[in-house]
This record gives sequence, structure tokens and C-alpha cells, in this order.
Amino acid sequence: MRKIEHLGIAVKDLEASNELFKKLLGSEHYKVETVEREGVSTSFFLIGETKIELLESSREDTAISKFIDKRGEGVHHIAFAVDDIHAEMERLQGEGFQLLYPEPLPGADGKLICFLHPKTTNGVLVELCMDKPAH
Amino acid sequence: MRKIEHLGIAVKDLEASNELFKKLLGSEHYKVETVEREGVSTSFFLIGETKIELLESSREDTAISKFIDKRGEGVHHIAFAVDDIHAEMERLQGEGFQLLYPEPLPGADGKLICFLHPKTTNGVLVELCMDKPAH
Repeated sequence: MRKIEHLGIAVKDLEASNELFKKLLGSEHYKVETVEREGVSTSFFLIGETKIELLESSREDTAISKFIDKRGEGVHHIAFAVDDIHAEMERLQGEGFQLLYPEPLPGADGKLICFLHPKTTNGVLVELCMDKPAH
Repeated sequence: MRKIEHLGIAVKDLEASNELFKKLLGSEHYKVETVEREGVSTSFFLIGETKIELLESSREDTAISKFIDKRGEGVHHIAFAVDDIHAEMERLQGEGFQLLYPEPLPGADGKLICFLHPKTTNGVLVELCMDKPAH
């Protein structure tokens, strides 16, 4: 685990939350991106070496929509940057953490990602992410 | 806001969670600290420029204890490093954020801190923290 790559925050209204986080952080979001597979619209803010990713659900059956229904807006996940996602997935599985899927998937921001089940990580939804290889 | 100074994670059993986060992050916590005023025992892990602070309640009536009763273990707050906490408190109040107290208080890790009410920050409990002046 090299650093916290980003924090994912579930929001109801991306446009309103972009304004709110602009006021909070004192800087604008630098991009927006839609991840069709996950049914989310996202925006990204830079803060030091880390990013804040706001996530708005675009459908009713998404993980973000269910999260907000259950507990309201708030911190949804912590993503850690890793150099070799396959090696980290193997290491963490060996340590008893439960992976949400057996192979990394493409995520937002040009990353390969995998999640750990929060029941094995003190209630924290942990994402691993690695820049996609260029080739 | 300069960077994410730390993430606070509410846990039930600090010793067990120290072991868990050691396995997750691949590194040991570098200190433990008790904050009597808040009724919490804490431990800190370094990850890049950021820290992870685990918080265990030492009494039944603390914010951490109530948080865990309400929603279980998980991310409790995001702390941002600021250079001038008084100036940031004034700026944020002017932007419509609600401060939990009017003057900064001493927190863990030799900081002056203040919290913003999560109802004004998309459900995220935001902490401002600044190193205490040396004099």
C-alpha cells in the first residue's frame, strides 16, 4: 500500500456537492467521469497527494444508491494505491481479507481496481487501485 | 486545506484492529495515545503523507461509542491539515459551514482541532487540524 489514492464520498446531487466541496477545499473539481458499469457519475478534487471522488448514483439499484438509502450521504470507501494489484490481492487474501471479485476490474480514472469486503476490514470498504499498464 | 492529515476510523477493539490494519497496510502503528477529554484511545499508522487514526472508546458516553452503536465500525471523520486554523474556521463559517465549537481545542497528536457539523458537509464529519505553535 503506497498511499491513499482517493476517498469516495456518496452524494445525492453531484452538482450541489461539487459546489459544497469547492467551498470546503477552496479548489474546483478537475474532472467528471461516468462509470456505466457501476451506474455512477463521479467528480474528482485534488488535495495534496490524494483525491476526493464524489459519487452520485444514476440508477436506483446501484451500490451508491443502496448505501445512501441505508445510512445517508457520507464516506463510502477508501482507495489505496498499489504498485501490483494482483500481488496485493493475493497477499491480502492470504491474510484473511475477503476480495469482492477474483480479478481486478476497470474503474474510474484509468485504474484497475478491486474491493475488500468491509466485514473483514472493520466496516471500512477498502479499494485497491493501480494505474492500468500502458500496453 | 493543504492535505488530508488523517482518517479517523472507529473501532471496537484497538488491539485487534491494530493487528488487522498491520496486515492490511503492511506496516505497524507508530504510536498510541489516549485523549482523556474525548474518552478515546487512539493508534496511528503512516500511509504516504497521510495517517490512519484508529479510535476506541474508553467510556460508554463518547462520540465514538455512539457512532458505533448507531452504524457499527467504520470511517468516523476526515481531518484536513490547515496552516492557520483560526483563518480557516472564519472562512468556512462565512461559506455556511457549521463549526462544532467556536475556538480550536487540543486534539491527539499535538494538534489544535475543530470539527464541522456533518449536516453541512454531505454527511462527512470534517476535522480541521493544525500543529500547535511551539511557543
